Amino acid sequence: MADKLYHGACFYPELWDDKTIAKDIDRMKETGINVVRIGEFAWSKMEPEEGKIDVSFFTNIINRLYENGIDTVLCTPTPTPPIWFSHGHPERMHVDQAGRTMTHGSRQHACTNNAHFRKKAAIITEALAKEAGRLPGVIAWQLDNEFKCHIAECMCASCKSQWHQWLEARYGTIEQLNEDWGTHIWSEYYQSFEQIPQPAATPFLHHSSLQTMYRLFESEKIAEFADEQASIIRRYSEAPITHNSTLFFSVDNERLFKHLDFASFDTYAPQEKMGSYLLNCDVWRGLKKHTPFWVMETSNSYAASLESYANPHQNGYLRSEAVAAYALGGQGFCYWLWRQQRTGSELPHSAVISAWGEPSVGYENVLQVEEARKKIESAMLATKPVQADIAITYSDRARMFHLTEPHNGIHYKDLMTDLYNIIVQEGFHRDVLPEGGDLIGYKLLFTPLLPYVSDEYLEQAKAFLEAGGIWIAGPMTGGRTKNHTIHTDRALGRLEEWAGVRTLFTFPMDEHTSAGEAFGCEAPLGLWSAVFEPAGARVVGTVTKGITPNKAFLTEHHVGKGKVVMLGSMPSGAAGKKLIAEIFQHYAKEAGAAVQTDVTPGTIVVPRETEDGRAMWVIVNMDGHGGTVTLPAGGQDELKAEPVEAGKLTIQPYEYRIIQFRKEGASL
Amino acid sequence: MADKLYHGACFYPELWDDKTIAKDIDRMKETGINVVRIGEFAWSKMEPEEGKIDVSFFTNIINRLYENGIDTVLCTPTPTPPIWFSHGHPERMHVDQAGRTMTHGSRQHACTNNAHFRKKAAIITEALAKEAGRLPGVIAWQLDNEFKCHIAECMCASCKSQWHQWLEARYGTIEQLNEDWGTHIWSEYYQSFEQIPQPAATPFLHHSSLQTMYRLFESEKIAEFADEQASIIRRYSEAPITHNSTLFFSVDNERLFKHLDFASFDTYAPQEKMGSYLLNCDVWRGLKKHTPFWVMETSNSYAASLESYANPHQNGYLRSEAVAAYALGGQGFCYWLWRQQRTGSELPHSAVISAWGEPSVGYENVLQVEEARKKIESAMLATKPVQADIAITYSDRARMFHLTEPHNGIHYKDLMTDLYNIIVQEGFHRDVLPEGGDLIGYKLLFTPLLPYVSDEYLEQAKAFLEAGGIWIAGPMTGGRTKNHTIHTDRALGRLEEWAGVRTLFTFPMDEHTSAGEAFGCEAPLGLWSAVFEPAGARVVGTVTKGITPNKAFLTEHHVGKGKVVMLGSMPSGAAGKKLIAEIFQHYAKEAGAAVQTDVTPGTIVVPRETEDGRAMWVIVNMDGHGGTVTLPAGGQDELKAEPVEAGKLTIQPYEYRIIQFRKEGASL
Amino acid sequence: MADKLYHGACFYPELWDDKTIAKDIDRMKETGINVVRIGEFAWSKMEPEEGKIDVSFFTNIINRLYENGIDTVLCTPTPTPPIWFSHGHPERMHVDQAGRTMTHGSRQHACTNNAHFRKKAAIITEALAKEAGRLPGVIAWQLDNEFKCHIAECMCASCKSQWHQWLEARYGTIEQLNEDWGTHIWSEYYQSFEQIPQPAATPFLHHSSLQTMYRLFESEKIAEFADEQASIIRRYSEAPITHNSTLFFSVDNERLFKHLDFASFDTYAPQEKMGSYLLNCDVWRGLKKHTPFWVMETSNSYAASLESYANPHQNGYLRSEAVAAYALGGQGFCYWLWRQQRTGSELPHSAVISAWGEPSVGYENVLQVEEARKKIESAMLATKPVQADIAITYSDRARMFHLTEPHNGIHYKDLMTDLYNIIVQEGFHRDVLPEGGDLIGYKLLFTPLLPYVSDEYLEQAKAFLEAGGIWIAGPMTGGRTKNHTIHTDRALGRLEEWAGVRTLFTFPMDEHTSAGEAFGCEAPLGLWSAVFEPAGARVVGTVTKGITPNKAFLTEHHVGKGKVVMLGSMPSGAAGKKLIAEIFQHYAKEAGAAVQTDVTPGTIVVPRETEDGRAMWVIVNMDGHGGTVTLPAGGQDELKAEPVEAGKLTIQPYEYRIIQFRKEGASL
Repeated sequence: MADKLYHGACFYPELWDDKTIAKDIDRMKETGINVVRIGEFAWSKMEPEEGKIDVSFFTNIINRLYENGIDTVLCTPTPTPPIWFSHGHPERMHVDQAGRTMTHGSRQHACTNNAHFRKKAAIITEALAKEAGRLPGVIAWQLDNEFKCHIAECMCASCKSQWHQWLEARYGTIEQLNEDWGTHIWSEYYQSFEQIPQPAATPFLHHSSLQTMYRLFESEKIAEFADEQASIIRRYSEAPITHNSTLFFSVDNERLFKHLDFASFDTYAPQEKMGSYLLNCDVWRGLKKHTPFWVMETSNSYAASLESYANPHQNGYLRSEAVAAYALGGQGFCYWLWRQQRTGSELPHSAVISAWGEPSVGYENVLQVEEARKKIESAMLATKPVQADIAITYSDRARMFHLTEPHNGIHYKDLMTDLYNIIVQEGFHRDVLPEGGDLIGYKLLFTPLLPYVSDEYLEQAKAFLEAGGIWIAGPMTGGRTKNHTIHTDRALGRLEEWAGVRTLFTFPMDEHTSAGEAFGCEAPLGLWSAVFEPAGARVVGTVTKGITPNKAFLTEHHVGKGKVVMLGSMPSGAAGKKLIAEIFQHYAKEAGAAVQTDVTPGTIVVPRETEDGRAMWVIVNMDGHGGTVTLPAGGQDELKAEPVEAGKLTIQPYEYRIIQFRKEGASL
Repeated sequence: MADKLYHGACFYPELWDDKTIAKDIDRMKETGINVVRIGEFAWSKMEPEEGKIDVSFFTNIINRLYENGIDTVLCTPTPTPPIWFSHGHPERMHVDQAGRTMTHGSRQHACTNNAHFRKKAAIITEALAKEAGRLPGVIAWQLDNEFKCHIAECMCASCKSQWHQWLEARYGTIEQLNEDWGTHIWSEYYQSFEQIPQPAATPFLHHSSLQTMYRLFESEKIAEFADEQASIIRRYSEAPITHNSTLFFSVDNERLFKHLDFASFDTYAPQEKMGSYLLNCDVWRGLKKHTPFWVMETSNSYAASLESYANPHQNGYLRSEAVAAYALGGQGFCYWLWRQQRTGSELPHSAVISAWGEPSVGYENVLQVEEARKKIESAMLATKPVQADIAITYSDRARMFHLTEPHNGIHYKDLMTDLYNIIVQEGFHRDVLPEGGDLIGYKLLFTPLLPYVSDEYLEQAKAFLEAGGIWIAGPMTGGRTKNHTIHTDRALGRLEEWAGVRTLFTFPMDEHTSAGEAFGCEAPLGLWSAVFEPAGARVVGTVTKGITPNKAFLTEHHVGKGKVVMLGSMPSGAAGKKLIAEIFQHYAKEAGAAVQTDVTPGTIVVPRETEDGRAMWVIVNMDGHGGTVTLPAGGQDELKAEPVEAGKLTIQPYEYRIIQFRKEGASL
Repeated sequence: MADKLYHGACFYPELWDDKTIAKDIDRMKETGINVVRIGEFAWSKMEPEEGKIDVSFFTNIINRLYENGIDTVLCTPTPTPPIWFSHGHPERMHVDQAGRTMTHGSRQHACTNNAHFRKKAAIITEALAKEAGRLPGVIAWQLDNEFKCHIAECMCASCKSQWHQWLEARYGTIEQLNEDWGTHIWSEYYQSFEQIPQPAATPFLHHSSLQTMYRLFESEKIAEFADEQASIIRRYSEAPITHNSTLFFSVDNERLFKHLDFASFDTYAPQEKMGSYLLNCDVWRGLKKHTPFWVMETSNSYAASLESYANPHQNGYLRSEAVAAYALGGQGFCYWLWRQQRTGSELPHSAVISAWGEPSVGYENVLQVEEARKKIESAMLATKPVQADIAITYSDRARMFHLTEPHNGIHYKDLMTDLYNIIVQEGFHRDVLPEGGDLIGYKLLFTPLLPYVSDEYLEQAKAFLEAGGIWIAGPMTGGRTKNHTIHTDRALGRLEEWAGVRTLFTFPMDEHTSAGEAFGCEAPLGLWSAVFEPAGARVVGTVTKGITPNKAFLTEHHVGKGKVVMLGSMPSGAAGKKLIAEIFQHYAKEAGAAVQTDVTPGTIVVPRETEDGRAMWVIVNMDGHGGTVTLPAGGQDELKAEPVEAGKLTIQPYEYRIIQFRKEGASL
């Protein structure tokens, strides 16, 4: 992959005639598209009859694009096995949680754990890698497309037998499983692994361990499939491999990307959810910390299908999205899709060019992106995002625990986004890390909503604390074991010990009748909560209303040179946001976390730095209302090529600015 | 059928003993019921054991009724095959879209495409037609009952193989289908017709073409069944044949009624939806333009079943419904049902007589209807509804396209009713026509929400335009092809060319941030929209807010002596209603559309005329609040038998008036 | 069972190690727990492999508890057959109404009508009864657990054939069934019993008779299973037998408890539904009138599972619940559960002790209960609840009729609770009786929402009326026959005759446009209604608005020395509550119903009496706001051991008081 910023679009040449393709390539060049992604649904074009494989259509396209200055991200076509695979073979199909066997006609209809599927997928992938793997136009690979976007866990017979094997590998003996799961409850006790059901129809809920383990099993299996595919490609290609995922598919992204080369994501967050867009950028930057991420798919105006649509972006927003992505560590920014579909079920989806070949309603915005890309490219290539002092743990495994145990509708991603937005609005620069993310160099660690805190996580946290870090844990962190059961020694297990507290009670706080106070702020408390009695710790926040008055919900305790801060409950409502902000302000200050600005909400500041440590800010207005920020030092406006002084800077609606601070300002 | 107005009720003599039947016939005569509908669910009475057919019970009843002055609409009993057909034969049953096979115990449990069903249905129908077809009491036939009222498309194996045949007949070769559907998308490509799935369970949406074609296939098949049944009856009977349909069953009424003799509908619209009631009258008048329609089923007070009920009509409303139906071209007005059911699942439904043989809560209203029927009969027989100058196209095929592609919940009938209500409230007389409806004589044509505009439709529109008509097309008209795909030449296909515009963009307008202005009115714009650049046309309405400022959403263009008016977006909210009204007022005036009154909302005026062209108005207050209308000329109040002068006329709550204008007023 | 008040908890020793069990027993003693319930889910512990039965773990536990002063309610473990029963045997499993066959992993997965299940259940029950039946610690038995709590009617093949047998036993011949059900409707007519379907998938609704009879069949079968189990136990044990039911499971509690020895119920009504809690106490006292009931399960703070939770009780409420239960005729008050589950799907549910062995958030409240129990025990044992003068009929059979025919969402229990709350708030002491409840001694009988009034019920009502009682019948009472069909003689059958009225119409009143007046109160009228014309009766309430003006909705008629009061409609809204209260005040006074107090809402008065007729009041504040009541006479405050005078008494938040009136006040 070249050292440049990519501006791309997803392209389906297999759906159009040659004349249209030629026009499209011309138009791409005019538009400034320098990369396309192709092939992810093209299995029937590559292998129209079983065993008759010919990928020359695609190698020709890749070469033709390359000759026109357009690179390619090449996909394996495994999400859509052809009719010769599907027809008459229900046993190869995905079976959903209601027990329905999928049929041909959409995508992800095959079970990716079916042995025949794996075999056929390996053959087509090998053929494609062999032919295209060393083409100069192929700068990267994408495996499949959006694993598990339309499906959750599969209930087919292939999965069932592999589930039994996976359990045997994990637990060794059925006795161990019975013990770890506590299966004497409701007489669930199993005599052998092959008796263990999939989480299919039951009169009431399935056992928590069975549910969560089935999620982990399936997420491991899809990652195993990705690994298999990647290893085939690597035999024939040097190009880096990625996948396009999101924060809500039924996968564990940390595991899925473990053996992949770079991170990519798809997002169709509408403009009013700009916090979700930013969270995505931070999550995917954090997943592969030393490699730029790609926004592999986003709409240039609105997402739509036969059955739904989003509101179009306001003019100007798309450019802000692109600049924010590049600034936050992105190297590619790509649209789904280049040319509106003529057929299928995504006909109405916005594209760069309409089905009849004309610029779409979002086209002008694409030109604005390209203009910006060119303006900022050298600054972006000369710098990298600064590592934040604040790290937030974001975990798909935690999400799976919450899917098994949503209580009254807990939605992990939404709650995480709410917390994230508070931190952003307080002007903090932050990194979002997976569970296994390296904590070296951070000053403040925030771990909310992580029911199961693994030994590995605790080990890292220990080193972090010993080095002087402050760890804010909670709410809802630590209350579940590895097997999704309850601790029997203390409510929150080892974490509780470190925190210097005794958890008195865990229970659902009613935010209408409960409140707590800390740092002079009082706010309602809600969500599943823990209240504490100090056992070494200092009480910082106290319950003021509800059934546990005067108990602690916020404590701090010295560990090593650092501190564990336990947050036992979720402050809610407007007062709750203020209280959470206060907690962050307090501990960020105490931890010495730098890079905080007074930027107004709706505008963002992204701190970057050169190799020799000179600080740069990218400032982007995202909400179309403009804003201000105080520059701590003078510098150079990189785009206007003129100096700027320290002090208040005004940003126009959807404006973006790049400020290169003077040498002496590098300590920002 | 005699030249009279029918006042009828649905009657189930097979459920009652002879003494009760005798009482019922006496009571019918007292009440003024002159026609009954019988037999539609009586298969088990006619053929209690397979092959043992005896319909004498019904011929006797028909004769007995006839002797008492009561005519009969006789039904074929095919919606409810007996237990000897159902029991042990799941393969004969309807399979719903969730894959559930129906069982005995309700109705419409059999698949009407099952060969054995068709055979048995033909046998019972022939037996019935043979015995009853020439009885003097039988004035008409009804086929089956409410085809597809409880079921949508069937997913059984019989349907599957006929689906393949239907596709082969339509497309000829699998290559043609692949091309027309664009099946390389998502590798859906089919190698043979028998591989093509029914639209059963898939992880994400099925292909638009497959979905819409399956709807068309099934609607063709039910019409084919109707045709089969009709041809059997015609061998033995001269009586005209109808069916009782509605605007929301899974049928294409235009096709279904093509070979039937007259149109009938069932409606249970509650009083607060009087617009829906009027739309029905107009639709069914338009379907068989030269033959009066029947209201075959309506409640005399409220609809109800085990699981729901509507509010009862206010006293007086039923008579207004009946007078409106007769005035708008109805010949029959019938209740479901005569005597409340003793058993089953519609026990609570309102009837004329209770299960214990006493007048029901709506009985007095039935007497009012009968009194009115007698008063207006001669005037109605002496006149016919005037053909309107305004025609609105109402299409079940369009409805099927919207079912496949509802975007954010588009509901064809509701949107059409909203538009229709505006036209009614502006006091316009209007005809509602099927897609193939003859446009000769109309001055203004309105074609909203017709995604696929067929060549046949365009041909008729062309003649209409050349004769000087004004055609208002849109919103959402023209954007889809015959196969439910997107045009690749221009957004709206040939229509766009005629309209003298270039469609710049089609996209979902957000009515909260978009607005447009025309004729001095500004209103929010919403729904899936098109904005235009003139290519010959004149811009009439311009987008004032949103992401496409200054683009046109309303244009007009001369074609022949006429004009094509393109409406690209849906004005919404109160201001939107006003804007739509303004558009209509403007173009109706320009087109010279006559028969518009200043009648107040809640009251209607139905213009009728004698053979020699003398104008008559039937005025009915529907909302119980009374109203006014200005008479353009003096005339005779037909009911009071006294002269009325030109000028303001006051209508009392639920009052109806018949004004026969003096000769010189005929040009109304 | 000893003559004492029990304070208990559900206990699962099979899930914990011996050390934990020892700690638990010690803690129970500290806490004041004097009874535990065990064994209901422990089948796999008792019979880990098919046929290898050993219940010694439980007999040992029972003995060990007994030695520690703790009695046991022993359960049969039949709700959770082990994996050796389930695995590979879908034919033994419950099939739900969507046709899904249940799998292992939760509870109630087996069909209780499966012959193999019945056999295995009998074997384990006999083994348990034989070993534990005469242990001194076993004071009672509980059969199974919450029959049909997670499941409704089963659709398996075993049920199907038993359904046919049940129908044959009920109707004798298929002709009789066809006649009683009126199956010529929709050609449903059956030729033999084996053709009759279960109420599985149909396009529209199933027949009312089929639906209701299937509910009655299944409720009879589960009661038959209970009888079977009870008869096995009785061979080996003298201890009384109960079951823990609720008001919303798919059972007929009157039938289910017919051959059991005492009544128990489970309730998790949150604090804001205190009316539901009180209704439960009254219903279960009324079910076994001469035997105290048990609250077998309630949370000490909040109910929760993986997928939901309730808000915790406010501190103090639990004690009010317990005192109210003991006062209203309860002997046992037990928590679910003693120790929080470590595993499974009810991990988050509140318990007395946490999974890690510490007092839970509700623990202090449990101690308060124990303190109160000790204080009130002697007073409770010395008295019994006074039989009320007012009886309300509460019927699960009626509930089943409403399940079949919910009209617009009629919810029997909720409507009954609403009516009940009005009666409670008016300060009336009342009994709630099953359909077959003995009416001797009552003065006022209220029978709302009983669609089918059986001959047996009428016979009892007749004797009641002849003895001078006043019977308020309606709304929605009497309109259906035994077979869930409509009467054909008169709307409400024999009831109507007794009431001295002719029902003119039955129909759904629209509460927005209808109103009626009685006793100087006007209120909206709603729900399915009947309006009357007197035929001997006196009109008391007249319709003032709506489509039946001036008709009667409330009448009274002398029968014997008593009176039948027909209430044809449901007064609704705040005015409706007032009107219902007026009706009650009027007829309670006329009937001479005593024991009415002026207690403020949120506080209750429970009248009790000694064997020699001395009156005692237990007064409890339930809502945490405190209240007042006027003492009609002086007496002794039993808890403070000091005299109280007649007149106003103030009750503190969550306070409870026991007033023993002086001899002369016994006539209260």
